[in-house]
Amino acid sequence: MEYKVGVISGDGIGPEIVTEAKKVLDKIADKYGHSFNYTDILMGGCSIDATGVPLTDEAIATALDSDAVLMGSIGGNTATSPWYKLAPELRPEAGLLKLRKSLNLFANLRPAYLYKELAAACPLRADIIGDGFDMMIMRELTGGLYFGARETKEVDGVVTATDTLTYNENEIRRIAKRGFDIAMKRRKKVTSVDKANVLDSSRLWRKIVEEVAKDYPEVTYEHMLVDNCAMQLVKDPKQFDVILTENMFGDILSDEASMVTGSIGMLSSASLNDTKFGLYEPSGGSAPDIAGKGIANPIATILSAAMMLRYSFDLDKEAQAIEDAVKQVLKEGYRTIDIMPQPGETTEGITQVGTAQMGDLIAERV
Amino acid sequence: MEYKVGVISGDGIGPEIVTEAKKVLDKIADKYGHSFNYTDILMGGCSIDATGVPLTDEAIATALDSDAVLMGSIGGNTATSPWYKLAPELRPEAGLLKLRKSLNLFANLRPAYLYKELAAACPLRADIIGDGFDMMIMRELTGGLYFGARETKEVDGVVTATDTLTYNENEIRRIAKRGFDIAMKRRKKVTSVDKANVLDSSRLWRKIVEEVAKDYPEVTYEHMLVDNCAMQLVKDPKQFDVILTENMFGDILSDEASMVTGSIGMLSSASLNDTKFGLYEPSGGSAPDIAGKGIANPIATILSAAMMLRYSFDLDKEAQAIEDAVKQVLKEGYRTIDIMPQPGETTEGITQVGTAQMGDLIAERV
Ligand SMILES: CC(C)[C@H](C(=O)O)[C@@H](O)C(=O)O
Ligand SMILES: CC(C)[C@H](C(=O)O)[C@@H](O)C(=O)O
Repeated sequence: MEYKVGVISGDGIGPEIVTEAKKVLDKIADKYGHSFNYTDILMGGCSIDATGVPLTDEAIATALDSDAVLMGSIGGNTATSPWYKLAPELRPEAGLLKLRKSLNLFANLRPAYLYKELAAACPLRADIIGDGFDMMIMRELTGGLYFGARETKEVDGVVTATDTLTYNENEIRRIAKRGFDIAMKRRKKVTSVDKANVLDSSRLWRKIVEEVAKDYPEVTYEHMLVDNCAMQLVKDPKQFDVILTENMFGDILSDEASMVTGSIGMLSSASLNDTKFGLYEPSGGSAPDIAGKGIANPIATILSAAMMLRYSFDLDKEAQAIEDAVKQVLKEGYRTIDIMPQPGETTEGITQVGTAQMGDLIAERV
Repeated sequence: MEYKVGVISGDGIGPEIVTEAKKVLDKIADKYGHSFNYTDILMGGCSIDATGVPLTDEAIATALDSDAVLMGSIGGNTATSPWYKLAPELRPEAGLLKLRKSLNLFANLRPAYLYKELAAACPLRADIIGDGFDMMIMRELTGGLYFGARETKEVDGVVTATDTLTYNENEIRRIAKRGFDIAMKRRKKVTSVDKANVLDSSRLWRKIVEEVAKDYPEVTYEHMLVDNCAMQLVKDPKQFDVILTENMFGDILSDEASMVTGSIGMLSSASLNDTKFGLYEPSGGSAPDIAGKGIANPIATILSAAMMLRYSFDLDKEAQAIEDAVKQVLKEGYRTIDIMPQPGETTEGITQVGTAQMGDLIAERV
């Protein structure tokens, strides 16, 4: 089959890690008789430099015309990047937010998985890690505080800024369904996270989740307050299967969860709408400090490409081949610098490799 | 001196732990020639049972008439408590929110401190713990999503719920000053946490914090995005001295930080306004599952009483005496069940004690 893949290389390490993902996809194409036709899409800082805005209408049109979009990362160091002084709606992140909204990518899947080979990188105590953990965060991505009305104005000489958190029942229902659907393919447990003891939007969230849950009698579900969830992720991450939550809470908790696994350079993500289309990107950022050095870990991007094969193209076997190849190189002891053993751990059988070499190794094993 | 102390025993383990804090205060009174006159204040579930509402105007008046208020904890198990089915504004938590707002308690101080004696209870790896950490969260407590306008209504047959996040420059300035003031008494570092790449309120936050920072040239400060902060707390908590943030982010991050220390049963908190008045309470909840069993850890409440002596009564020496007594009993090996060594750790020299015995031990050592 032929697939049109939009490619957002972006800023920082983005171009380097995307190159490796394409390398692996090309190997899949060869081996399984597919063809991936890439079209570059400008977004983020590089788009600002070229066009003055972080995402042009033309770029959105190209994304819409693709079967799926693979992304590296966007943005620069908040304090030093040349885009930091621009108005917020002109900054790199604004491009990403606009793309999410324009393509209606409301369902953000963020796996938080502990790789056994990398357990020593996990910041938690060995007895908490136990035999590992494997969570999926289902974050609502096109509503809430991110896209509500906002305003900064002076009232009687006092500057006041307001953001609005709004959800309607339909927005909650469609993301809740996605959460329960994915739980059915996993360990059949949903933890819905809100702040229902304070927020109206959370009370509506809770009510709709309870309605949706009725259609999934096999799934065990629970409600958890967001402050408690932030604690439980550190105390006992094993208890979680699917965490279902709104946009801002999902932003905070998914970053916490990925750090708890110690595998942030390894974690992929998918942003989906109601069609087969999806935007696939690593969980980590653009890491401007190591850009251009050839040392960034491409695995999260390569695994994002695997998610693309699975969710947008229904190529389960091919996705699995990539995931197995990643596990294989880890087993063989290959590591980029970010996942090297901690000081004091053994380095026997471990080989440090750069970005391109890691891509080669995975492509070879596909 | 004579001090009027309002006492909110509250629900769950509240009455048990407050009893021990009073025991320790009475010992202080004896030894240093003070007198603490306690007046009970009904709040939370027990107030609902007695009066139908979680906090009466009379209770607020009593609090206002006190020099400070010491609190146990309020609320029941979210799923099973008899108050769970009530309208949100009638539930136990609503009493606490109303008290915070009525008394203008805008500055919430939450220490997150690792007790060396309890380092084995810390969920983090030993090399991350290093020689321990000691953070102070300064959370804004009377603004933001907690107290903005909210509304749930049907628009064209679709239920929509809205909460509002508003801050004005004065609200930000006064809490920022508190954050920098406390940093001056500590390691002189402030990390201001916001989501300025998305929220207008966060951009105003950042701007005002920068203005306030100018008055504290000795304090190093930085801005950090909330998602990144949730990661950094797990990855490297040692980097933090004072974390300064708005209400909802502070709710989430302070719970995460206290869990990261592994000492949640040990952590106190203070909620202050522009006067010497303060509300002092343990960071943990009402733990209905262990209420009445005499096993709850009273230390967080006892340390909250110490904070009361320091911040509301300027009794630094007396506060220090309590803190030293707590360290002493830990050193002598006394532990309530929640801070007993992990399975596999040595229990040599460790004695498990109940709530009242722990209170006695600390009072004796004051
Ligand atoms: C870049 C930023 C706007 C974005 C977000 O907050 O959603 C990022 O943190 C993420 O989680 O994808
Ligand atoms: C009980 C609840 C309303 C409260 C809050 O969210 O502020 C609690 O979680 C806290 O942190 O004191």
